[in-house]
Order: sequence, then C-alpha cells, then structure tokens
Amino acid sequence: MSVTSQTIVTPQLIAFDAPFTLQNGQTLPRFDLIVETYGTLNAQKDNAVLICHALSGTHHAAGRHSASDKHAGWWDNMIGAGKPIDTNKFFVIALNNLGGCAGSTGPLSINPETNQPYGADFPLVTVQDWVQSQALLADHFGIEQWAAVVGGSLGGMQALQWTLDFPDRVRHALVIASAPKLSTQNIAFNDVARQAILTDPDFYGGHYAQHQTKPHRGLRIARMMGHITYLAEHGLGKKFGRNLRDGSLHYHYDVDFEVESYLRYQGDKFADHFDANTYLLMTKALDYFDPAAAHNNQLQAAVQHVKAKFFVASFSSDWRFAPERSHELVNALVNARKSVQYIEVESHHGHDAFLMEDAPYMNGVRAYMHNIQVSQ
Amino acid sequence: MSVTSQTIVTPQLIAFDAPFTLQNGQTLPRFDLIVETYGTLNAQKDNAVLICHALSGTHHAAGRHSASDKHAGWWDNMIGAGKPIDTNKFFVIALNNLGGCAGSTGPLSINPETNQPYGADFPLVTVQDWVQSQALLADHFGIEQWAAVVGGSLGGMQALQWTLDFPDRVRHALVIASAPKLSTQNIAFNDVARQAILTDPDFYGGHYAQHQTKPHRGLRIARMMGHITYLAEHGLGKKFGRNLRDGSLHYHYDVDFEVESYLRYQGDKFADHFDANTYLLMTKALDYFDPAAAHNNQLQAAVQHVKAKFFVASFSSDWRFAPERSHELVNALVNARKSVQYIEVESHHGHDAFLMEDAPYMNGVRAYMHNIQVSQ
Repeated sequence: MSVTSQTIVTPQLIAFDAPFTLQNGQTLPRFDLIVETYGTLNAQKDNAVLICHALSGTHHAAGRHSASDKHAGWWDNMIGAGKPIDTNKFFVIALNNLGGCAGSTGPLSINPETNQPYGADFPLVTVQDWVQSQALLADHFGIEQWAAVVGGSLGGMQALQWTLDFPDRVRHALVIASAPKLSTQNIAFNDVARQAILTDPDFYGGHYAQHQTKPHRGLRIARMMGHITYLAEHGLGKKFGRNLRDGSLHYHYDVDFEVESYLRYQGDKFADHFDANTYLLMTKALDYFDPAAAHNNQLQAAVQHVKAKFFVASFSSDWRFAPERSHELVNALVNARKSVQYIEVESHHGHDAFLMEDAPYMNGVRAYMHNIQVSQ
Repeated sequence: MSVTSQTIVTPQLIAFDAPFTLQNGQTLPRFDLIVETYGTLNAQKDNAVLICHALSGTHHAAGRHSASDKHAGWWDNMIGAGKPIDTNKFFVIALNNLGGCAGSTGPLSINPETNQPYGADFPLVTVQDWVQSQALLADHFGIEQWAAVVGGSLGGMQALQWTLDFPDRVRHALVIASAPKLSTQNIAFNDVARQAILTDPDFYGGHYAQHQTKPHRGLRIARMMGHITYLAEHGLGKKFGRNLRDGSLHYHYDVDFEVESYLRYQGDKFADHFDANTYLLMTKALDYFDPAAAHNNQLQAAVQHVKAKFFVASFSSDWRFAPERSHELVNALVNARKSVQYIEVESHHGHDAFLMEDAPYMNGVRAYMHNIQVSQ
C-alpha cells in the first residue's frame, strides 16, 4: 500500500521479555518498544531503514493516526511514497526509544518490582543502550542488516553508533544536523534545562506521578530555552523581529513582544504532553555520547572498523550542531578512508532545519537514498 | 590621591528629593543614587567621566571597600591611575542605577506610600529614565558636560542615549559590546529568564520580601542561562571542554562535567546576592531600548542631532551583542557624518570580553581617552 500523509498508520507494541543490561550496569527485567512501519519488507529483507528520533521525537514519523488527526508524523515530509525516504522502495521502521514517553518502556511505565511508575528510578540510558535495543528490534523483524539507519541530531548520534557497534548490520548511515559529541556549551544548556526541572518544587525527586502532579514550570522553562537554541537568530528575527503583540509597550512583565508569546506557547504545549523524567534522561544521553573518548579522543580511531557508507548533512545557521561539528565527523571518516558524502545546506531555520522542507536538503537525501541498492 | 586597585573607596548616597516622572508615566516621589568617585574634578569641571553599568553592575567600579576586601571593583582594570580611564586625568563617577539593588532606590527600598519594600511595585524604568536621573546626578556635581560617558552592554546603551537626549552635555561616548537594540533572540532569552523568576513559587508576585523568602531557584536558572550567553562557545570549550569533575560519568543528574559545577556555582552565587525584581526590570530596560523606533526604524535619523564623538568596540566571539550589531551603530553614525572610531577585538571571551584584561581592547580605550582634551 502506498504511504501518503493521509495514510492511517497503527503503532505496534513489541515486547522484549528477556532481561536487558544497560551500559550503567543496571538491568531492566523486560521492556516494550512502540514502533510504526511504513512500506513492505522485501523477501531478502535488505530494504529496511531505521529512523532514530531526537530528544522529543516519537515512533510516529509519517502518516496519521486517524482521519481526523490534524498533524502527520514528525518526519512525514521525508518518509512516504515518492518522498526522499521512499516507502515504495524501503521498509521503514520508526520507534520510540527506550526511556521515552510515547509508549515504549520509560519513566511513565510501571516498574514490575514496585508496581509504581518508574519515575526517577528509570535508569539513565545511553545512545549505546538504544542501539542495543534497536538491534533486538531488528532481530524481531528478522532484519540482519539495515539498508540504512537515519537520524537527525540525537538521532544522528544513534546512526553513527550503529556503524560502530554493529559494523556488519548497517550498510548506510545518514547523520543529519548532528555531532560526534556535544560541545561544552551544549552540555551547559542541557544542565540549565535539567536544573530548571530538578529544582521545580513539583518534581518531588522525579516521583511527581505519586504526588498527582508534574514539574510543568521547570519543563516549560527548559523547553523555552531549548527552543531558542533550535532556531537561528536570523530565522527568529525574520519571523518575529521586534514586533509587538498589540502595537505598544506595556511596562509590565506579561507579553510585549510576539516572540515572547510564541515561546511561552511552545513551552506550555510541550510541558503539557512530554514527561520530565524522559527529558532529563534524553539530555544526559546527549551529554554522554562521545565515541572518540574510548580512543584517546581520536574520532578517526573510533571509526576505523566502520563498514557503512555515510551521508552527512549540516545546516548553515545551526549553531547548536554547527557545520563545523559535522566536519569533525566527515574528516575522521575521510582520514579513515571511509565512504562519505557531505552536504552543507544554506538555511535560516537553525537546528530545526533538519525537520523542514528544504529542496536542496530533501534532494540530497533523495539522491543518496535512491542510490542505495536493494533487492527487487 | 592616586587611585589604585588597593585604594579604599567610600560610596556616597545622594538624595534627589523632587518628584521624578518616568517614561511610563509613573512618578517616584523621591529617590537616592549611590555613587563612587575616583580622581578629582578639575576647576573647569570638564574632566568628568560617567561610567554606566550593565545588567548586574553596581557603583563599585574600582578600588576596594576595605583593606580585607577580596575583590576590587568590577571595572578596576579599566579605571585608575595610569589605567585606560586614567584617574590622574579624569574625575570618574560610577553609580548604581535607579531600580538597582546595590544601594540606589529600587525594589528593595521602602515605598514611602506603603512603608513596605517596593518589590514588584517599583516601576519599570528605561534607559531614557536612567539618563534623566544621571543628568540630575551631573547637576548635583555641577557638571555641565561630561568629558565622556562610558559603558559596556546595557551601559553602552546608556552612553548612546546620553548623546541623543543631551547632545550638549556629552563630548564623547564610548559604546562597548553593545547594540542599538536587542535582537529577537536576545529578547527571547530575556523572557525565558523572566519566566523562570516569575513562575518560581517563591516569587509571590514580586512581594517575596513580605513572605521572608526569595525566588532563589528562578533567579539561579536565569543567571545560569544568561551566563552561557555571556561566554563564547570557544572560550567555554577552552576552559572546561568535556572535562569530568572526578574523571568518570555517574549516570545521575548531579554534576558529571566541570562546566555544570561552574555554572551552578555562578547561578547560586548570583541568586544569593542579587534581587530578582531588579533582574526583571533590567532585562525589560534592555528589551525596550530602541532609539530608532521613534524615527521609522532609521538609526541614522535617530543620531542626526548627536554632537558627541564616538568610540565603539566589539568582540569577535560575542554572540549576544555580535560585532554586526556594533556595525549598525557605526554605519548610522558614519552616514550621519558623525565622528566615530571603531575597533573590533579578537577575543574568545564572548560578551564578557568587555570586562576582561585584553591588551588590544585596553589600548584602544587608552588611546581614545588619552586624546580627549581636558583643562589642566
């Protein structure tokens, strides 16, 4: 069946009932992953593409959940029939990561040992843990090797980690608007976000569910700040400038400028639906990702056993994961004599550009995916 | 007396007992300004220099308050005998602005109408209000015309405003690491900072003093975020990189990376001594500053009646007030055929560079100040 923005997709919950030991040494007795799939797995099972999500992403990457659903999935412009990741050719799997809050096992899930939500007791998971759990997911579908693993931002880190941990199980990695590790400034912003949540009186050490509340204000502040960093100054200026919401200054602390109204709305919307414990652990997974660390900080050494071919993309106005950060990865791959295609896209959308409809970017991904060989 | 970093300086509190009407229409029945002075006013009273402070500055710009005082004033590297702003030549006045929390009338002061601290009832003051109050300060000292008005960041905005509102009362304006108006992104960051304070349950609508508390956590978050924006990514990376505080990751939300420890310390220290209501009003003064707005957004038109000569400085890694923002001012001045010297200083200190000891910067200010004529 052809997958369009109007296609009704149904998530599947997949159970993994064996104990799963994490990088930090803790063991989950079992876990579920919620996934959506688009397209059809071919007989040789060599056309599968894994979509890895970023901080706040979910398994709902394309199509709709019902005819009345107002929005399509978060990467619907990228995934579908005739789209850059063409579901007429590929079988695409998108999941909600372990530790997420959209249906996979995470802080909102019941801890079988206490019969209470895990909350803050849910262990800190890492990019490596996610790749291990995604490998079990591949096994579940009988997929020995991904045609491609694709992700933007934190998702790109997972794509890179796949090529390191399972060099034989991934033919192509698409690492978009990402970095081989966070910068000091990135870590600093993440810590402020976490502190906003952790010091919210409604956080209750992460066990807010047991107090029938949520650290709404902390999560809202975290998101407002994060949102600024996802956008480019130029794009923000173009969209809002110094426009006043109603034409005059009010000498108060309520909204004067349109950008204030926009940011508060974004913060509220996010805090209404996202889980604060998941936000915390996602930011830590970002902070901890640093595959070169185990190789004396030599990224080239870290990628020396990689077999996948790479497509790397960055965006000119992305100051959170600037083009220079992609250059680090590209240079390491080139120096290690790996295959890598790199595009640097002019954009005023900042880090969020990886989610936007932007012809040179879309065409770059389209061309790369077009040239991936799969069995008929 | 020669002013050095060891000189003991004594602040003076100056009372202004006439009603003072603000830009927003409100009237303060009276106010005090706390000041420090360095050097000696000459007989012709033509060697006076006004130092305008930024968001968190005070009147304590140079020297020490006691022999055991650990730190000299905030601009002690700039002001003193033989320093770029040479107190052997100039009579320097530094003040705490109206609305501040270091001794001038502000939210911590007693409102004579209620006999309670003003708190949130203290009116929103603007850069124009500050300049008006500083003009009264000049009158108090019998200073008809400043040799120079000098400021960095928000202080630079005051220096610029002086040249617009009192063209005959200022011969030179030194506008450092500043901008003719905030960008959308600047406003956005300020609003997140304010929201962190305003939504702190200990804020109590700004009347926290009456509840014997302070919105410590909100102010701390605001400062942590602000602090990141004052520093350059490169400088932050150079100082902390991804260094771990004790050599390993802990899979917890407490400090892993040194930069986290540093930021939290900065946030705590600031929240311990600064007043949240003052922080709020200072950020609004920043947001509202836009002298071109009354001239159809033409900065050149706004500066057409300026008589002062300008020195403008910016810093390469300052992304809060980037060099491009100084260019806007320089271009407007040049197009209006005003006298302007501009230096763009290579620095990895970000916005904070204006407070740092940096030879090309210090020498630039030194040369400019050296060439200002004063009577013997």
